[in-house]
Amino acid sequence: MTKALYVGSFDPITNGHIDIIKRASQLFGEVIVVASASTAKKYVFTLEERLKLIETSLEQLNITNTQVMSYDGLTINLAEELKADVLIRGIRSVKDMEYESDIAQLNKLQNDTIETVLLFSDVKYQSISSTMVKEIAFYKGDLSALVPETVEKALTEKFNERR
Amino acid sequence: MTKALYVGSFDPITNGHIDIIKRASQLFGEVIVVASASTAKKYVFTLEERLKLIETSLEQLNITNTQVMSYDGLTINLAEELKADVLIRGIRSVKDMEYESDIAQLNKLQNDTIETVLLFSDVKYQSISSTMVKEIAFYKGDLSALVPETVEKALTEKFNERR
Amino acid sequence: MTKALYVGSFDPITNGHIDIIKRASQLFGEVIVVASASTAKKYVFTLEERLKLIETSLEQLNITNTQVMSYDGLTINLAEELKADVLIRGIRSVKDMEYESDIAQLNKLQNDTIETVLLFSDVKYQSISSTMVKEIAFYKGDLSALVPETVEKALTEKFNERR
Amino acid sequence: MTKALYVGSFDPITNGHIDIIKRASQLFGEVIVVASASTAKKYVFTLEERLKLIETSLEQLNITNTQVMSYDGLTINLAEELKADVLIRGIRSVKDMEYESDIAQLNKLQNDTIETVLLFSDVKYQSISSTMVKEIAFYKGDLSALVPETVEKALTEKFNERR
Amino acid sequence: MTKALYVGSFDPITNGHIDIIKRASQLFGEVIVVASASTAKKYVFTLEERLKLIETSLEQLNITNTQVMSYDGLTINLAEELKADVLIRGIRSVKDMEYESDIAQLNKLQNDTIETVLLFSDVKYQSISSTMVKEIAFYKGDLSALVPETVEKALTEKFNERR
Amino acid sequence: MTKALYVGSFDPITNGHIDIIKRASQLFGEVIVVASASTAKKYVFTLEERLKLIETSLEQLNITNTQVMSYDGLTINLAEELKADVLIRGIRSVKDMEYESDIAQLNKLQNDTIETVLLFSDVKYQSISSTMVKEIAFYKGDLSALVPETVEKALTEKFNERR
Repeated sequence: MTKALYVGSFDPITNGHIDIIKRASQLFGEVIVVASASTAKKYVFTLEERLKLIETSLEQLNITNTQVMSYDGLTINLAEELKADVLIRGIRSVKDMEYESDIAQLNKLQNDTIETVLLFSDVKYQSISSTMVKEIAFYKGDLSALVPETVEKALTEKFNERR
Repeated sequence: MTKALYVGSFDPITNGHIDIIKRASQLFGEVIVVASASTAKKYVFTLEERLKLIETSLEQLNITNTQVMSYDGLTINLAEELKADVLIRGIRSVKDMEYESDIAQLNKLQNDTIETVLLFSDVKYQSISSTMVKEIAFYKGDLSALVPETVEKALTEKFNERR
Repeated sequence: MTKALYVGSFDPITNGHIDIIKRASQLFGEVIVVASASTAKKYVFTLEERLKLIETSLEQLNITNTQVMSYDGLTINLAEELKADVLIRGIRSVKDMEYESDIAQLNKLQNDTIETVLLFSDVKYQSISSTMVKEIAFYKGDLSALVPETVEKALTEKFNERR
Repeated sequence: MTKALYVGSFDPITNGHIDIIKRASQLFGEVIVVASASTAKKYVFTLEERLKLIETSLEQLNITNTQVMSYDGLTINLAEELKADVLIRGIRSVKDMEYESDIAQLNKLQNDTIETVLLFSDVKYQSISSTMVKEIAFYKGDLSALVPETVEKALTEKFNERR
Repeated sequence: MTKALYVGSFDPITNGHIDIIKRASQLFGEVIVVASASTAKKYVFTLEERLKLIETSLEQLNITNTQVMSYDGLTINLAEELKADVLIRGIRSVKDMEYESDIAQLNKLQNDTIETVLLFSDVKYQSISSTMVKEIAFYKGDLSALVPETVEKALTEKFNERR
Repeated sequence: MTKALYVGSFDPITNGHIDIIKRASQLFGEVIVVASASTAKKYVFTLEERLKLIETSLEQLNITNTQVMSYDGLTINLAEELKADVLIRGIRSVKDMEYESDIAQLNKLQNDTIETVLLFSDVKYQSISSTMVKEIAFYKGDLSALVPETVEKALTEKFNERR
């Protein structure tokens, strides 16, 4: 069985991420969704909130071969610990591609038995990044096409607190 | 009459911005230049200074169909309020294009009756960004080809204060 | 009134082209759709067929401010003859952007009073080029989302003759 | 078991192609390598020669879960016939990415249950295309790092005939 | 003394090429301009015409450290024969860059002691390619900013013959 | 003799930088490696540490025509002071290229007698940036292929202090 990791900030999870997870879960035996716990980055949502939003969003999809966890470290080290075969990356644009290419090459220098696999984001979700979702939420724009309902609610609450 | 918005930070306005405004004012009935008043970003010039520099720069061009204002919110919401038809964007490079494409698509998800229109920056202005202009000013480089005289003076004063 | 030219091979016209024409006709006073009559290129459809398919496709949209014509020459010369203000270009990708930038710059060297304006292709039409449409038609793939019905019929006939 | 298609011209197969096939065969249950038999394109090697070179090159790798075949038609139709789950594409550069993105999107319009998966070419093989290999062979350059020995021999013979 | 090769089709030489040659001649001890004599490509100008246009254009610049020659073969082999240290390439755009990167990498695989050096085309010449120059000449557009006078004359004659 | 500047943050110097310096030193009479002393940026290593790491790394290469220094100001001004002829830039990707093109154009606006020259990073070093090296060091990943031994040691110490 092929085991795949899908690592990200998920601050918060968007419809774009969910689309990638759904499709990866059909291609690979097991998909482990990993929220990065790096203390160096600043997040709008806490690690607990980010994990909770991923879990709630995935539950509604009825996918049985995914797991959710967090990790603070190099992706390639986690992949080794978990004996994963594949790193999944969603790709939205040329800009992404260059970054992904660098990361994939560095990971290969660390361990060349773990493969990086790119899936194209659906064009519907091509423009959606967590950063943009947060900016739209901040200004109370329409989020319904961009994130699941639970995330929409969480974003609204978060930015109401903040203002 | 077609009403166009041209939104930016204008921190400060450059010859590249001015070229776009001049050209847009010939294509569209009215061009509203909007300085973003977002409190989330850090600016070198205050909102008042930025607006003043835009106004002074445009006065010298004798264009009668432009207005200058500020706004804190999603561009698309302002466009709706003002019943604008078009969002103008100047494009300098491939890098810009990807970002602009994302923004245009998100705006379309919010309101698909408002059109995004790209104008190519003149090659003379292709390398000029406000960021680079500030770096050159900081180190007292030659700004004469990059910004109008008023802006040059303002930059010199600003960075003399700061040093 | 702003007069805009939209020049292309239209071999054949696709839903992507039609989307651009529709949107341009809302922004500009008059949109002239020009099928290139260059004898240097090889077309699958004759000039007459290409013009006919454009006309039939546009009739169904009920747009009153468009015209259709053909031209063999430099776009910029036609723009001068017709006293056009704007050259419309639809942009689908970064690849397009570079090419469009070169063409716009060359046109500006010839006549810098005529402006090039880019409109983003709708994401639904981003992957549709006339070349790909012909390849799909050749292999009897599904064209319904890519071209108007008249064009679909014309493609099917054309490639039945050919096989 | 996940069934994957890897379609190309393979005119001729290069070390870059072989690297992708090897890696895909570790990720997916079965990998079917398909040489395009399109009569519209011009090839240096005949279909029979291209298939033979693929087969010989793969035999030396001792991979048991690959098959080789030819097809003249839309990839997506073959995928449907063979009940394949995945289309494999090797990606070498940004230029490739744009093209691949278009193809993936068109395939999705035809059948959205078949997934496109991108694997990065190893940097060692990033610059190797069949086109460049043929140009180097034509001028009797060094092919040893670019193609398997059998292909090197075939290229040498082919271009000796031709000159 | 560093010896540099600048290889191209030069069909015909443009102001962009000349700018690169001029600048390279200031950086390197000797610049050898090589017109590709490949019989596989189709040229508008004969090899003799292309060489003559290069020579005439360079004479007017009074550069003493350039030579002009033709070659049919791999650039890297010529570099070895002539004991050149550097391959000069002019770069106009991102599109060029990818192609140049592939060529540079392949050349390095053949001989890693010969260096590839990129010079940026002046923005004034960024949009000028020999292909576009020929298209403009074909339609009797204005060539004065794009090529030297001698080349302009040659293009006009060539396309008068042809029409 | 051609004098070349190679300016960067070198926070810290990587194998990619060293490869560029080595190759530049073969092409140009003198190569001056300049560590940027800008007080506006945040560095992991102090200026003294960065200079020391550059010097130690270069000593091991036995290159006699390089010098190391620091500077706080516009590169073009330093080039004028030192009467340098060339600015060397290493280029790893398309993303770099756009940035480099902007910088080169701005420098040319300031002084058009100083040339920018790009060298391609070796593919082995294409994915290595100082930023990524620091992230890998932070998580105690394998640095041996990315930086010289002295730098590896310095990184390990630096991030042990910090944790």
